Amino acid sequence: MIDDEPAPVGPFEPPYYVAVFTTVRTPEQHGYGETSARMEELVKAVPGYLGMDHAQTPGGLGITVGYFRDADALAQWRSNAEHRAAQQRGRAEWYRSYTLHVAKVERSNGFTRAGTP
Amino acid sequence: MIDDEPAPVGPFEPPYYVAVFTTVRTPEQHGYGETSARMEELVKAVPGYLGMDHAQTPGGLGITVGYFRDADALAQWRSNAEHRAAQQRGRAEWYRSYTLHVAKVERSNGFTRAGTP
Repeated sequence: MIDDEPAPVGPFEPPYYVAVFTTVRTPEQHGYGETSARMEELVKAVPGYLGMDHAQTPGGLGITVGYFRDADALAQWRSNAEHRAAQQRGRAEWYRSYTLHVAKVERSNGFTRAGTP
Repeated sequence: MIDDEPAPVGPFEPPYYVAVFTTVRTPEQHGYGETSARMEELVKAVPGYLGMDHAQTPGGLGITVGYFRDADALAQWRSNAEHRAAQQRGRAEWYRSYTLHVAKVERSNGFTRAGTP
C-alpha cells in the first residue's frame, strides 16, 4: 500500500537538534527488538520529540537519527532511567561499536517528487 | 576478514558539522551507482572532509551522514559544480523524497567493544 511506503522525517524549522547514532551490532541480539520498540514508545512521550529516521544495511551499519525541538528535550531523553538501562545493556550485549553525534541544526530542506503522496 | 567489517565513523572533537541526508529512492536507478562512487571520490578531496557513514534498508530508507570540520568545508562541497549537477539528476530520476539536515555537532562519544579491532 502506498500509505505504508517509507518517507524521511522533516525538514523542521531550525534551530532543532539531531542525535545521530551509528552502530554495528554483535551476533547476540536477544531482547534487542523488544527494547528497541520500548525505547521508541518512550521517546515519543518526551515533550519536544519531533521524530526519528532509521536505516539498517543487512549485516552492516545501522543509523538512527532522532530529531528534537531543543536541548532540553534531548536532556530529558538522555536522563530517562529506562533509556540509561537500555544503553548499558546495549554496550554489554548488542553493540560491537557505536558513535553518537549530538548537533544543532542550522539549515534543512526537503524534496518530494511531484505526484508522490 | 575482520579488517573488512563495517565500523561507524568518529567520534571527532567538537565542534564539527554533520550533513544528514535521508532518502527514499525511485525504481529508476540507472547511473546512480556510478554517480554515487564519483561523489564519494570528490567529497574526499574537499579540505576539512572527515568521513561518511551510510546505511540502506532494502526497499526502504537510506541515510548518509557526511562529517566536515567546519562550515567552510561544507560550503565548498555544496558549491561543487559536479555535485550540483548530480543533485539535479537525483531530483529528476533517483529520489522519490529526501530531507537534508545540516547541523553543528556540540557533543559526541563512541564505544568499541573490548577485543574489537
